[in-house]
Amino acid sequence: MTQNICLIIEYDGTRFVGWQVQPNGVSVQDVVEDALARLLGEAVRVTSSGRTDAGVHARGMAAQLRSPRQLPLKAYREGLNGLLPPDVAVREVREVDENFNVRFDAKGKWYRYTLYRSKVRSPLAARTSWHIRAPLSLPAMAEAAVFFVGHHDFSAFRTSGCAALTTERKIFSVTLSQEGDFLHVDVRGAGFLKNMVRVMVGTLVEVGLGKKKPRDVNLLLRGDLGAGRAGRTAPPQGLCLMEVWY
Amino acid sequence: MTQNICLIIEYDGTRFVGWQVQPNGVSVQDVVEDALARLLGEAVRVTSSGRTDAGVHARGMAAQLRSPRQLPLKAYREGLNGLLPPDVAVREVREVDENFNVRFDAKGKWYRYTLYRSKVRSPLAARTSWHIRAPLSLPAMAEAAVFFVGHHDFSAFRTSGCAALTTERKIFSVTLSQEGDFLHVDVRGAGFLKNMVRVMVGTLVEVGLGKKKPRDVNLLLRGDLGAGRAGRTAPPQGLCLMEVWY
Repeated sequence: MTQNICLIIEYDGTRFVGWQVQPNGVSVQDVVEDALARLLGEAVRVTSSGRTDAGVHARGMAAQLRSPRQLPLKAYREGLNGLLPPDVAVREVREVDENFNVRFDAKGKWYRYTLYRSKVRSPLAARTSWHIRAPLSLPAMAEAAVFFVGHHDFSAFRTSGCAALTTERKIFSVTLSQEGDFLHVDVRGAGFLKNMVRVMVGTLVEVGLGKKKPRDVNLLLRGDLGAGRAGRTAPPQGLCLMEVWY
Repeated sequence: MTQNICLIIEYDGTRFVGWQVQPNGVSVQDVVEDALARLLGEAVRVTSSGRTDAGVHARGMAAQLRSPRQLPLKAYREGLNGLLPPDVAVREVREVDENFNVRFDAKGKWYRYTLYRSKVRSPLAARTSWHIRAPLSLPAMAEAAVFFVGHHDFSAFRTSGCAALTTERKIFSVTLSQEGDFLHVDVRGAGFLKNMVRVMVGTLVEVGLGKKKPRDVNLLLRGDLGAGRAGRTAPPQGLCLMEVWY
């Protein structure tokens, strides 16, 4: 008897090369598989709802494994949290259906990007936000954000190395919210291209700085401005994968 | 002509041995004095409103220097922030009166201690909070907190090595506030003994866990329970010096 297990994982991505195993450093997947091997007594592979890049954080990464043992769900959570390093933890453990597929059954994802708006950088916020010194026009950013919502061709909003076969994606919502000096950009969508949220946020910031007009987002989505005309890719530490829905 | 300068400094205390220069590692004072030496072209000593322990953070540490040069205040802020490491920044620069003394002129300080209340630890909150797994009774903690307010002998609420000549201190307020799974304990007072806030919080947590009664705080302050009967010292990473008033 095996168990089909889904783990909801939180991590501080600062020191990792990303979620996925890479030859050039430690990945989150590495430390999760190490902890599982110690808990279960044999090597187990995990698959995930998707990847996150180096330096990107997660509150709710979903990962799946076929466990060779039958354990109470609490034993996975507490056992793994005792074995994982301080910057990775299992928040929740679910036993899922035989046919569950953590990647293809995902209905949507919520990413949060955090900007820190201040003349002076903040050491306590440096690991989890992008510092923007110059004033940002929130009305312009909000106007631009609306264009992203819906079903569009996002080929202008990805970075090189994106191997996706199709570039159409559906975005459910893009919401801006302020919390003191922080500005959160919450993006919910059915799927994402490589670095798509970071290019979207980089473009919104250029709109906020007045370097682009809100309607440029519309032109980029319609292919009327050409790829390469989107904003810069926002740095990784501001991004957090908050939740994956099934 | 020299300038009497007061710096308001933010830092992530994780990697430092504390504010003050120590033989056994890097202090915040070290990196501030290094940056000043590079900015001003000669060694300059800074004095501060007080010390913080290894691992304790600050949003508003106040530090003073006698600058050998006459610079616009903005040049100190921007120059130092370009020279300081990512985990230390100067938030504000003030030119102060000839007789200003950053230590003895302080009218009060605000410390914030952050607890993270959850069955599961949080990697993203681990550097800046104390994780408490078991349920805490907030009414009991709030009842206990009231006893701290006012002028009391805090000799039961300090740790060994405290060299203060007197142990009476005045606390203006102790406020509990919730923010999601976080519980903030804000302590404002005229002065503090060594580790005083951390022992106060450790004691409040024991009250919250039911290991102590709220009135035990009163007995400890009156000397009726004996030193050594206060709670454990809360770990450093939950503590942040928010502000010093003049």
